[in-house]
Amino acid sequence: MAFVWYRMSIMSLVVQKFGGSSVGTVEKIALVARRVAERRKTGVGLVVVVSAMQGDTDRLLQMAHEAAKIPDPRETDQLLATGEQVSAALLAITLKGMGIPACSMTGAQLRLRTDGIFSKARIVSMDTERVHALLDAGNVIVATGFQGVDAEGNLTTLGRGGSDTSAVAIAAALRADECEIYTDVLGVYTADPRVCPDARKLDTISFEEMMEMASQGSKVLQIRSVELAMNHKMPVRVRSTFSDDPGTLVCPEEDCENIERLVVCGVSHNKDEAKITLRSVEDRPGVAAKIFAALAAAQINVDVIIQNVAHDGRTDLSFTVGRSDIAQSEEIVQGLLNAVGAVGMDVDDTIAKVSVVGVGMRAHAGVAAKMFQALCAAGINIQLITTSEIKVTCVINREQVGDAVRALHGAFGLGG
Amino acid sequence: MAFVWYRMSIMSLVVQKFGGSSVGTVEKIALVARRVAERRKTGVGLVVVVSAMQGDTDRLLQMAHEAAKIPDPRETDQLLATGEQVSAALLAITLKGMGIPACSMTGAQLRLRTDGIFSKARIVSMDTERVHALLDAGNVIVATGFQGVDAEGNLTTLGRGGSDTSAVAIAAALRADECEIYTDVLGVYTADPRVCPDARKLDTISFEEMMEMASQGSKVLQIRSVELAMNHKMPVRVRSTFSDDPGTLVCPEEDCENIERLVVCGVSHNKDEAKITLRSVEDRPGVAAKIFAALAAAQINVDVIIQNVAHDGRTDLSFTVGRSDIAQSEEIVQGLLNAVGAVGMDVDDTIAKVSVVGVGMRAHAGVAAKMFQALCAAGINIQLITTSEIKVTCVINREQVGDAVRALHGAFGLGG
Repeated sequence: MAFVWYRMSIMSLVVQKFGGSSVGTVEKIALVARRVAERRKTGVGLVVVVSAMQGDTDRLLQMAHEAAKIPDPRETDQLLATGEQVSAALLAITLKGMGIPACSMTGAQLRLRTDGIFSKARIVSMDTERVHALLDAGNVIVATGFQGVDAEGNLTTLGRGGSDTSAVAIAAALRADECEIYTDVLGVYTADPRVCPDARKLDTISFEEMMEMASQGSKVLQIRSVELAMNHKMPVRVRSTFSDDPGTLVCPEEDCENIERLVVCGVSHNKDEAKITLRSVEDRPGVAAKIFAALAAAQINVDVIIQNVAHDGRTDLSFTVGRSDIAQSEEIVQGLLNAVGAVGMDVDDTIAKVSVVGVGMRAHAGVAAKMFQALCAAGINIQLITTSEIKVTCVINREQVGDAVRALHGAFGLGG
Repeated sequence: MAFVWYRMSIMSLVVQKFGGSSVGTVEKIALVARRVAERRKTGVGLVVVVSAMQGDTDRLLQMAHEAAKIPDPRETDQLLATGEQVSAALLAITLKGMGIPACSMTGAQLRLRTDGIFSKARIVSMDTERVHALLDAGNVIVATGFQGVDAEGNLTTLGRGGSDTSAVAIAAALRADECEIYTDVLGVYTADPRVCPDARKLDTISFEEMMEMASQGSKVLQIRSVELAMNHKMPVRVRSTFSDDPGTLVCPEEDCENIERLVVCGVSHNKDEAKITLRSVEDRPGVAAKIFAALAAAQINVDVIIQNVAHDGRTDLSFTVGRSDIAQSEEIVQGLLNAVGAVGMDVDDTIAKVSVVGVGMRAHAGVAAKMFQALCAAGINIQLITTSEIKVTCVINREQVGDAVRALHGAFGLGG
């Protein structure tokens, strides 16, 4: 008996995450339960992380906004955390009804500790003792995604899409063998198939590439979850709830399949950002720091930042922010215009970003040049350019984003 | 400053409980918030206990029953506990939107410890340290009713109507001055006004009387909450959410207003029970113990129990159970028929109970006789009779229950 016990303790362990559309109704939850049951037959230990039922979070948020113009963040988190508690309990009820031992656990019960930044909390630690004990006893653990608990016991949420991050964090804390993210697409594509009909599904992609794809608008995985997976070297498999296709494995670069990789693995785009430009800022130390510190304090994520060489001690400073943060960003920047000696501010809400991503470009020169040529040939003007080691991003007119993605997908030979 | 702090610590403290119909919509929650705000102006410390929004618990239960034929009790409690979390968070959001410091707290956050009997948990203890600290800091505490947490951190619910019990338990733990139960009636009446048009609202009623009224079908307060209030001498005020009427104060007998009380304070009735009779049971020690231990083990509450003198070593044994427990009770008793030597069992689902209640009957003889005469005069046959120190209960045909209540209300001079 003791032997069996220990053997179970070292069985392989998989964390599976199902999003809101996969658990949108009791019937869909039954499909998920069957999938979990099938997998359990292989003898693997399972932790299933669920999002709230589709529409539930919006329904709750709407009530919060009816209750107060600006709903208190702590209380909104107390409210929203119920969404995953409902779906987790329903999945556990379904599994137990099928004769499978299961136990739903909230963020507090998982002891998934976060910081105290309501609505955008970051995971600090997880106490795995009770989860391991329940797993060893043969239970499927059904964990609530998206939420944790701060040092004082307040419920916190990780922000929209935080369930991916929860799943990876739980997988890392439990030292799981793999984290599977179930979604409504077959995996990670070379470009958004809705924009680019000849986009191909990738079998593997490196953490670094996935992170750039995610940061540049690929909605398959939350960037925070990829970052976390990379830090913990936790392989993440993106796959479809409704198919047996193995999906795409996001893993360390050395584990990626193609020995002779393409220079570029994908083209991503993002239409949810806006561009803010401070005109004729004084070119002295501390100007950028002042602006971006103020934005960071308001929890606003800034993406592309461009500042070109100065003329006559003055320069233009441009950056992009998420469209939902425009109003707040505008207010903050407006308040700082005098302090940084700017003569004015422009907000452009008609932009899009398009990026080519690939670890291969570390060893291959000319990727940027090829990109600019392809965009030029398609008649697309480039407003801003920014590069990283494995990515080149251009800000263009939003109306041209589809043409840009297709042109780049073709130019880099990504087609099926 | 320190002085103010200590003064706040010893300010008077009131626990208010609002039921599901009072928090049924965001608009109704706003009404409750205004009521809370008004009261707070008087400088009193407030803990507001809320039920789930009307319909929410049923909606969740329905999903549970869609997910499994017999939903697992632990998981059902994890599911149902979200109901109060939603209403508590929405009330706190509303209060904070009005500029009133507020903090919602779940059963787990309140450290309201219960035993581990899911769906019918009993409160064991409460750690009040954090609540007192938050109250001292000027917050209105919005507490989830109906729920707690067991020693292992599993969420538990106290059973339907458990929010009254939560409110009294929290009031007792915090040594509050009074516990107010807000409902949709003005207070406790001498009889159900829907059945008896000349029923009067009582200004005060003793714990003992309220307990008998509650146990006999008065739905104004849960019997467990009255029991708890009596044990802790916690005054409970039953009043309307929609009126400024002071309602009815449930308090120790010596604090009740009327020096010259009526012998009987009220007539209660209950149509939600059924009668089970074991025919010709062997009259030997252990028979009753066997049956009622089995029912208790299944968490079935038995009310009236009647066993008359034996003839030829055999007797009939009758008792009543809640109608929702009939099927399970029947199954349990059926399994014991041989063991107790009974020749058969009858289940009668067409009964009702009617009771007269009053502490005055301790000192006054003839209450039972007067009751039987009044029922006889109204042409109502009595099937079973049982008495306590301050109550006489008769089981009658369910169809005659309205006539019985009106006849007794008149006979004991309770009319307005």
